[in-house]
Formats: sequence, C-alpha cells, structure tokens
Amino acid sequence: MTKPIILTGDRPTGPLHLGHYAGSLRSRLQFQDTHKQFLLLADMQALTDNAHDVGKVRSNVIEVALDYLAVGIDPEQTSICLQSRLPALAELSMLYLNLVTVARLERNPTIKDEIRARGFGRDIPAGFLCYPVAQAADITAFRATVVPVGEDQAPLIEQTNEIVRRVNALAGRPLLPEAVAIIPRAGRLPGVDGRAKMSKSAGNAIALSASPDDISAAVRAMFTDPDHLRVADPGKVEGNVVFIYLDAFDDDHDAVEELKARYRRGGLGDATVKRRLEDVLQALIAPIRTRRAELSTNRDHVVDVIRRGTLKAREITERTKRDVMAGLGLFQL
Amino acid sequence: MTKPIILTGDRPTGPLHLGHYAGSLRSRLQFQDTHKQFLLLADMQALTDNAHDVGKVRSNVIEVALDYLAVGIDPEQTSICLQSRLPALAELSMLYLNLVTVARLERNPTIKDEIRARGFGRDIPAGFLCYPVAQAADITAFRATVVPVGEDQAPLIEQTNEIVRRVNALAGRPLLPEAVAIIPRAGRLPGVDGRAKMSKSAGNAIALSASPDDISAAVRAMFTDPDHLRVADPGKVEGNVVFIYLDAFDDDHDAVEELKARYRRGGLGDATVKRRLEDVLQALIAPIRTRRAELSTNRDHVVDVIRRGTLKAREITERTKRDVMAGLGLFQL
Repeated sequence: MTKPIILTGDRPTGPLHLGHYAGSLRSRLQFQDTHKQFLLLADMQALTDNAHDVGKVRSNVIEVALDYLAVGIDPEQTSICLQSRLPALAELSMLYLNLVTVARLERNPTIKDEIRARGFGRDIPAGFLCYPVAQAADITAFRATVVPVGEDQAPLIEQTNEIVRRVNALAGRPLLPEAVAIIPRAGRLPGVDGRAKMSKSAGNAIALSASPDDISAAVRAMFTDPDHLRVADPGKVEGNVVFIYLDAFDDDHDAVEELKARYRRGGLGDATVKRRLEDVLQALIAPIRTRRAELSTNRDHVVDVIRRGTLKAREITERTKRDVMAGLGLFQL
Repeated sequence: MTKPIILTGDRPTGPLHLGHYAGSLRSRLQFQDTHKQFLLLADMQALTDNAHDVGKVRSNVIEVALDYLAVGIDPEQTSICLQSRLPALAELSMLYLNLVTVARLERNPTIKDEIRARGFGRDIPAGFLCYPVAQAADITAFRATVVPVGEDQAPLIEQTNEIVRRVNALAGRPLLPEAVAIIPRAGRLPGVDGRAKMSKSAGNAIALSASPDDISAAVRAMFTDPDHLRVADPGKVEGNVVFIYLDAFDDDHDAVEELKARYRRGGLGDATVKRRLEDVLQALIAPIRTRRAELSTNRDHVVDVIRRGTLKAREITERTKRDVMAGLGLFQL
C-alpha cells in the first residue's frame, strides 16, 4: 500500500520556535513513518505580504531548513523543497484563478481576518487576496490528501476542495483528489508572556536555538497566576503558561497532573514548577541546539538537502500540472 | 545593432478575420523586418473568461496559427509561441501579483469597461481581475519594449510599466525595460453591418478563410448610407462601411478619394463602389485562403512551427525569470 501524501511547510519569515515545535514540527516527525511527507519552504507565499523585504525571506529559507533538520526531519524520508523553484505551482495557480470569483476570495474568513489584522483595507496586495488559490495549487500539485492546518485555516482547505471539484467536473473525471485538513490536537502554544500566540516579533518566543541562559530567563519571566502571591495560596492552572507548557512538553503526565492538583490546593510555589519546566525545556532544546549549530557550519549540506527535495517535488508537481492541463483540454504541444 | 523586441498575439477564441488583418496582422508583417517579433497564442489569458469552454480555446490555437502563417508570418523571422507552455509567464505573474494592490487592479479602466461589458459584477473570475498583471509578466518576460495595443488598452501598458518600475526599485538596478505602447494608425475596422466592432460572434465579420461567395454576400449586404436611395442623390462617406473598407484595403488612395468625391456629389451608386471593394477583397483574401487551405492539411507542420517558436520563447522568458528572481533577491538554489 502506498503511503498517503502529506503537504505542510512554513513561510520562511523567521527561524522557528517552541510554538512551531508543539504545533507542527513534533507531529511532522511522526508523519515521516506513516506518510510520504513534503515540507514546503513557502518563499513565494511569504512574498504575498513581504514583497518589500525579500532579503528577510531569502535568509530565512536556510534558517527554517536548519530548524527542520535540527529537530530530526530526515531528508531521506521527507522532501524539503523550495516553492519558488517549482514552476508548476505558479502555473496551476494561474489556471485555478480562473475558477474562483473575486467575491469568493473576499468571503474567505481566513483572508478577511488577516486583512483586518494586517490593516490592509483595499490596499491589500493582489497576491495576498489570491493566496488561498496558490495554496490550492500547492496542495493539489503534490496530490496531498492530508494537510495539517491551524484551527483558523480550515476554510483554506474548503477552498482547495471547491477548486478540486471544479477541475474534476470540467475534466469529467477525478483528476485530483480532495484533501482532508487535520487540525493538531495540541492547540496553539501561548507566548511566555501569556499572550495567545508565540511569535518572534512579539518577543515572547523561545527559539529552537535558544541558549541555556535564554531558556532560564524565559522560564523565570514566564506568566503564571498573577493572584498566586504566596506559596501557601491556592493557584490557578488555567491560563497559567507554566502548566500549559508542562502539558505540552513534559512526558510524565501523571506527575504533571499531581503538580496541578497541589498548585490548585495551595502549598506549591511558582519557583518549584518553573524549575521542573526549565529542566524539561533544557532537555528538549539541548540536542536541537547542538544539531542546529553543527549543521549551520555546513551550509552546503543544507542547500543540497533543499536541492534534492526540490527535485523530487518537481517530479510530482510537473506530472500533476501536465495531467491537469491535458485533462482540462488545453492544447498539448 | 540588435532589433527591438516586439510582443503581440491573440487570445485563441476564434479564427481571425479581416478586422484583425487591418488592425494587427498587416503591421506584424512589416515588423518582421524591423523587429524581433514574438506572437503569443494567449491560451492562458483566453481562459480568464473561457474556463467553461477550454475546448474552444484548444481548437483555436491551431486556427489562429494557421491565420498567422496564411497571411505571411514567417516562422523564421517571427516566433509563434504558446502561452500555456511558458512556465516563466505564470511564475512572473505570481511574483508581480504581490506588487499590485487589489484597489489598483479595480481602477484599471480597461478592466472596469470589460467587467461592465461582460456583466461580471463581483462574480468576476479572479484570473480576469488579475490579467493585467499576467500581461505585464508576458511583456517583461520577453523583454519587449514595443507592444502594439488597441486604443482602449493603453492603460494595460501603464500597469506594466508601474510593475517594471517597482521591480527595478526593489532590485536597485534596471532589471527590466519599460515598454512603449504603439496604437495602430488604422483605427478599429467596423463590422459589415456598420457596428463599431467586427466580431465572429456578432456575425458581422469576414473570415480570412472566407470563400469567394462569402465575400460577395458580405459586400452585397454591407452597410452604406441609409439615406442614399437613388444613384443621383449625394451620399455620405463618413460611417459608410464600404468606404471605410476601401480606405483600409484599396492601395490606390487617389482613386478612392476620387470615388468619395463623386459619391458625395451624387451620381455614384452603391453597386459600383461595392463592386470595386469586392474586387479588392477577393484579391486580398484569395492567396490567404489558398495558403490557409494548403497548410490546414498539414497540421503537423503547424504544430511544429508552434513548438519551435515556443522553445525560442522559453529561452528568453526563462532567462528573464531567473534574472528577476535573482535580482529581487530570492533564494537561489
């Protein structure tokens, strides 16, 4: 039986952090055994709102690839590939743009939210409005049937499947498979300051290359229960970043549940819980940091990994493009 | 000195007709000597409002190529190329979409008019809204500095040059040349019924493959001066299709001017003028029809012409794409 194809990836706009590890990288390590996995370094998509800063996107291609390799992505099992070097993705995008109305794109809830969040108004770059179509091109070009997405991105897969159905209807046969969105069980990891989202730009992230001191400092400053003033007081576990992180990263779930119970009753100080979390994070990040530092001295190797992954990706995406163009009935040269 | 590059072409949605001959084909014959000419069979652009009828676009690729060859386009001098087989055009389109806002696309007067004419409203296909960007990709990919356009299309070249300036500013050097629109001296040829535009769908066109009888019938039915009832009456030359066509196709301008003077004075019947026009059109179309009939029995030759032209086009467009991607600073594999 052939393994199902999974497509995932990142916009290379910054090195990855613990939030990415909890939300996606960790599950990608598991998908390596069960799926045929492609990791897309989505530099073209990054340009939809970073056209003014191509340099940032360029330099983070290597950083993100380093993060992948450092956490244990195995290039023999997973193809790490560069979007801008896969022409079929652009060709399918241009084709699909004819199958979707402007009104439909504007109704996309993800796009609506992001337009609001970015303050674009009508001055939204056309590429940004169209990116759900480009994403449909990515997913279908790889013939991916499984696509891990954030909770707020499920509408993007719905848009993809609308295009798939339209293509199949025009072709009169099932040229493309529909994709299923899988939303990771682990919700989004909050920032160390308790804000909903960990991000480098918000300064509330722990990088995968964080030094032991960075980790200590981040855990020390971590948001807990602001009303838990004395050790003897009962404390709140909900919204307490230290416990959220322990839930996410401490493998000894029974011990964590016991700590939570003690914290709730009173008699357990923040310092004790933080010490445990720090140990967990130091142990988690140390080997990643070490591998990352080693790999970063051998840039050629990383480039070679991306090159080989991109060649594999080119094979499958070119084949899909040919199938779609022929299946829709374009002139064949 | 290298010849300037000219890019022109047609959306393959129907065989070409006399309106195309007067408006573009004739001048393309001249450009063969003075310019490096590329003729783009714009099947991808045709899909922006024909996605529901890919078959029509497919079959007209050959028809339009036949028209080109039949009127005397020489594939040794002019590259006839197929848009859907030039990936760099899609890649540059996707890149440029990030440099143009949705508001800017909606302000484009050509797009506004066409949205109105086609009754699209907000249900306009996204590909249609974006086609000025795709056209900028076409023009710049070929490094065309000369682009013949209809009177109503000058804003499209303005949009192209805005993108060129944006790319050059981002790259910090003149990566791409600006293009100059040339608007053909000969205005648009009206239909045989006197309506402003000749088109196959309006049934007021004379095809380049028209038979002698088709030509006779079309000239007989041609719109003249509805108030010119008797031969002795003075007639109107303005808006009189027969005279407009004589102006466009009769090389003996003095004779035509003399006919106009007589027609205005009175004493010249429609039948006489129509006979002259019919002779002119029969002489013009006969060799085109013959060559077209010959060529259409050798489809392989036509396909080969398109294939060779597309390979030439691929060379230049791929080079431009690489230059633009590297020049903007994307990651180079």
